[in-house]
Amino acid sequence: MPFTIEHRDIQSKARAGLLQTDHGIIETPIFMPVGTQATVKGIHNQELLNPIQAQIILGNTYHLYLRPGTDILETAGGLHKFMNWNKPILTDSGGYQVYSLKGMRKITEEGVKFQSHIDGSRHLFTPENVMDIQRKIGADIIMAFDECTPYPCEYNYAKRSMHMTHRWLKRCIARFMSTPRLYEHKQILAPIVQGSTYKDLRIESAKYISDQDMDINAIGGLSVGEPHEDMYAMTDVVTDYLPIEKTRYLMGVGLPENILECIGLGIDLFDCVLPSRNGRHGILYTWNGTMNMKNAKWKDDFNPIDPNSLSPASRNHSRAYLRHLFQVKELLAAQISTLHNLSFFLELVTEARKHIVAGDFKEWKDRSIISLKQRL
Amino acid sequence: MPFTIEHRDIQSKARAGLLQTDHGIIETPIFMPVGTQATVKGIHNQELLNPIQAQIILGNTYHLYLRPGTDILETAGGLHKFMNWNKPILTDSGGYQVYSLKGMRKITEEGVKFQSHIDGSRHLFTPENVMDIQRKIGADIIMAFDECTPYPCEYNYAKRSMHMTHRWLKRCIARFMSTPRLYEHKQILAPIVQGSTYKDLRIESAKYISDQDMDINAIGGLSVGEPHEDMYAMTDVVTDYLPIEKTRYLMGVGLPENILECIGLGIDLFDCVLPSRNGRHGILYTWNGTMNMKNAKWKDDFNPIDPNSLSPASRNHSRAYLRHLFQVKELLAAQISTLHNLSFFLELVTEARKHIVAGDFKEWKDRSIISLKQRL
Repeated sequence: MPFTIEHRDIQSKARAGLLQTDHGIIETPIFMPVGTQATVKGIHNQELLNPIQAQIILGNTYHLYLRPGTDILETAGGLHKFMNWNKPILTDSGGYQVYSLKGMRKITEEGVKFQSHIDGSRHLFTPENVMDIQRKIGADIIMAFDECTPYPCEYNYAKRSMHMTHRWLKRCIARFMSTPRLYEHKQILAPIVQGSTYKDLRIESAKYISDQDMDINAIGGLSVGEPHEDMYAMTDVVTDYLPIEKTRYLMGVGLPENILECIGLGIDLFDCVLPSRNGRHGILYTWNGTMNMKNAKWKDDFNPIDPNSLSPASRNHSRAYLRHLFQVKELLAAQISTLHNLSFFLELVTEARKHIVAGDFKEWKDRSIISLKQRL
Repeated sequence: MPFTIEHRDIQSKARAGLLQTDHGIIETPIFMPVGTQATVKGIHNQELLNPIQAQIILGNTYHLYLRPGTDILETAGGLHKFMNWNKPILTDSGGYQVYSLKGMRKITEEGVKFQSHIDGSRHLFTPENVMDIQRKIGADIIMAFDECTPYPCEYNYAKRSMHMTHRWLKRCIARFMSTPRLYEHKQILAPIVQGSTYKDLRIESAKYISDQDMDINAIGGLSVGEPHEDMYAMTDVVTDYLPIEKTRYLMGVGLPENILECIGLGIDLFDCVLPSRNGRHGILYTWNGTMNMKNAKWKDDFNPIDPNSLSPASRNHSRAYLRHLFQVKELLAAQISTLHNLSFFLELVTEARKHIVAGDFKEWKDRSIISLKQRL
């Protein structure tokens, strides 16, 4: 069993765990920076280690499959070697990306036919070849091929889609079990709970996924536009049914307050483009709330960007300076902001873990969320 | 006298010197990374210190005057504080930039009327207000306002322009001498030799500039499209006339081989956008020649970008990886490449200095230039 729960909160479903991979032990709850195309945008690997202190990053199968392509990745010895990242990696299945290619993809029982957003070339993803591709990419944790339903989603569509996701899961597991790993390290396959915002479907899916007895279980199809209350309600339902002793991954979540709430609902792994993408657009997250660095109000504010940040650039540069960098569209604006946000998201989950261990997670979470939601 | 010559080469005009400023001693010959808008594009200040080991950087008066503007810079306490860079800075006079605004500027004896490239707003640069602006920016070394003639340039235009540059210099000096520094550190004003590619004009200008008895003398109007042989010939002529005991700055030069040749002609300071701008476009400079990282030949070359680079990113990432980053237009491509090139340009001048001190500069330079000129 690669997952050990060290502490369990009494007032919530939060837990502090240790997830073992061949690239190192991950302390959960954890946030995974998104490294879509074999790079976390604007961030050197050295910076992922310090100041960000990332323990695991996420890669996108769809993007990596198109460029550099699985041949290059296989010749390189896998994604870890290709990008020179020696800690754990998780790859998504490509499902979410291909469904986003509206009008350029067709879903059938076999899989998804789609056209590349780069050159319009035609491709097919099936549960089987997505396993093969993720074998070649070689992440420590790989995701089952599922259909991520949009929001809102009609009940019957959500139900049919969920059942197809379950059938695809069987095919994923069969392929995964019958193929060897290509590199020295072990891979873990994680199935995904679907069911849109329907409680009965979520329960059915959670039971089905639990029955597969995989080491990591994921919750997909949330954070796709539904109200936060729905996201919390569905997460709460699903974590009541997923086995307590297995790692739980809530895909694509979210804002700092979403992460804290969902830690309280028993989630261990998070990923989201928010800190990196919004950082590039000038939104900074701090313990005291969010700051829009493009705002003219910062133009002569010579205080540190965030005196409490774990990122030296945020302590040593002024708000006026960062605002200037955004004004003149300098690369360094994105670099400083992404460093800031990812450092903050990792600090957020690290602090959450400390409070779970200390036994005061719930009070701390409720108090923190009030200030996290402010706008500075 | 802020300049001390430690060693003088016997077989060339090269010298190893120490230039004192209130922000530290600069070991010459030195290359100054260009930080146009209060940032060296894609580079954290911490990276300028290590691995790049920059001793002085350059800012552009034209850009800084427009954004963030001199008010903000003055309120910040000058450019050093604004950008959190505690080592020496040199600012150009804005002359080169405003002349580049073809059709949007008019040169008269008074100065240059120009329109902002950002919003078309109208501005006037005069020798006097350019001194005032550079007082507010607060660089350690500031440049006289000159006209940088284009190449080719008709003799009579070059002559008239040179004389106006000389008259403007008198006005710059008068203003500089009659205004106090605004911050604690001292500023040095550097006049600029002009005269296009005409030997007699260059000699006349060099004599005129020498007579002003300033601590740093600059050579402008080269590296503007003329053949390298002309650049070398003019530099050679001018350094025969500029006082040997004063620092010499060749503006806007250049390729690695240009820098080595001009060190041999007695130049101490260099600046150029080449390593940063060309880096962003995929051109890497190494001791063995240049590499175009966008080239498909690197797509499965898993050797380090440059195993001998002082930049860890170039030692730890493969050519295939960097080529991929350029293919997918990732920010990290520019970051790794700029780090690489600036580290290399600083290593280049540091090595040149060692060989000047060791007494074998000329042989080393001639040998190095052969490999520097190769294309890999």
